[in-house]
Amino acid sequence: AKKNTNIFSNRGMTLEEDINETNTFYVKANKAVIYKKPTPVQIVKVNYPKRSAAVITEAYFKQASTTDYNGVYRYRYIDFEAKETKNKTLFPLANIHEHQIDHMKAVVDHGGISFIIIRFAAHDETFFLPAEKLFLHWNVKLNGGKKSIAYETIQEEGYIIPFQYKARIDYLAIIDELYF
Amino acid sequence: AKKNTNIFSNRGMTLEEDINETNTFYVKANKAVIYKKPTPVQIVKVNYPKRSAAVITEAYFKQASTTDYNGVYRYRYIDFEAKETKNKTLFPLANIHEHQIDHMKAVVDHGGISFIIIRFAAHDETFFLPAEKLFLHWNVKLNGGKKSIAYETIQEEGYIIPFQYKARIDYLAIIDELYF
Ligand SMILES: [Mg+2]
Ligand SMILES: [Mg+2]
Repeated sequence: AKKNTNIFSNRGMTLEEDINETNTFYVKANKAVIYKKPTPVQIVKVNYPKRSAAVITEAYFKQASTTDYNGVYRYRYIDFEAKETKNKTLFPLANIHEHQIDHMKAVVDHGGISFIIIRFAAHDETFFLPAEKLFLHWNVKLNGGKKSIAYETIQEEGYIIPFQYKARIDYLAIIDELYF
Repeated sequence: AKKNTNIFSNRGMTLEEDINETNTFYVKANKAVIYKKPTPVQIVKVNYPKRSAAVITEAYFKQASTTDYNGVYRYRYIDFEAKETKNKTLFPLANIHEHQIDHMKAVVDHGGISFIIIRFAAHDETFFLPAEKLFLHWNVKLNGGKKSIAYETIQEEGYIIPFQYKARIDYLAIIDELYF
């Protein structure tokens, strides 16, 4: 499914920055309501100084139990994960946790649209891979097979998301084609 | 819309605890996929000690720009806020921020189901109020009118959520009746 139209190439932004900017554009243009979930943090100590804001002085990063982004588009629930890799030839499945797969399966079960956005930094390319295809590779891994998805496989099974000016990573355009 | 069936009364849990427990039950029973979003935190300083987990040593609470909970149920996007008040006679609209109202309006625009769960702690009662009804009261406030919703009004316009054994606050039962 490759169709590289990288007129606007990566401006040195991370995938997360690109997606956040895209989501902000979607919300402002009243196209969709999709946000990144806040980073889950286990708060241990908080100071409440007089006359100023509470300060968290001890906290720890918690493992996310779901995915990075969710929201609503054209009456459908949208739920996805974003991952960037420096690897040129494959996407290691170790980047994804089992509970995230379980979550994505539950989302699909309940009628949501779920997928993963994978950026190959070395190729300056970003792909949309439907959750259903990810599950197949995950099962191969569970059955003792390959622990990664080859770059070529993602080119074939995924959909490239071209860099654009306003919606940097216009993944809704892919959703329009695949799910409506 | 009052129908008080508080056989299982409040066990001293906060509304947030009740909803989290309910959502956990929904996920385990494969009934819905709805989670609380993590508390948004602005992380300023992180220490990376050798051989142990990263410690956040300075962080601040950020204002939430959206709502507390979202997810998917019966193919529909679900998005809601939860608020507890000690007030016996009214729910102060100061508990809600304008950007949260904007967010809920956008959700409804895009076909999501949005509402607020309000607990009157003094009455040990929890109500489901559809976003559309909340918007009307918000507009009254914007136009210089009342800055709160009377308890009696919430009894009339909202739907009481009885305490239950497994799904503590079974708000999906209300959604089944109102939206399907
Ligand atoms: Mg991610
Ligand atoms: Mg709340």
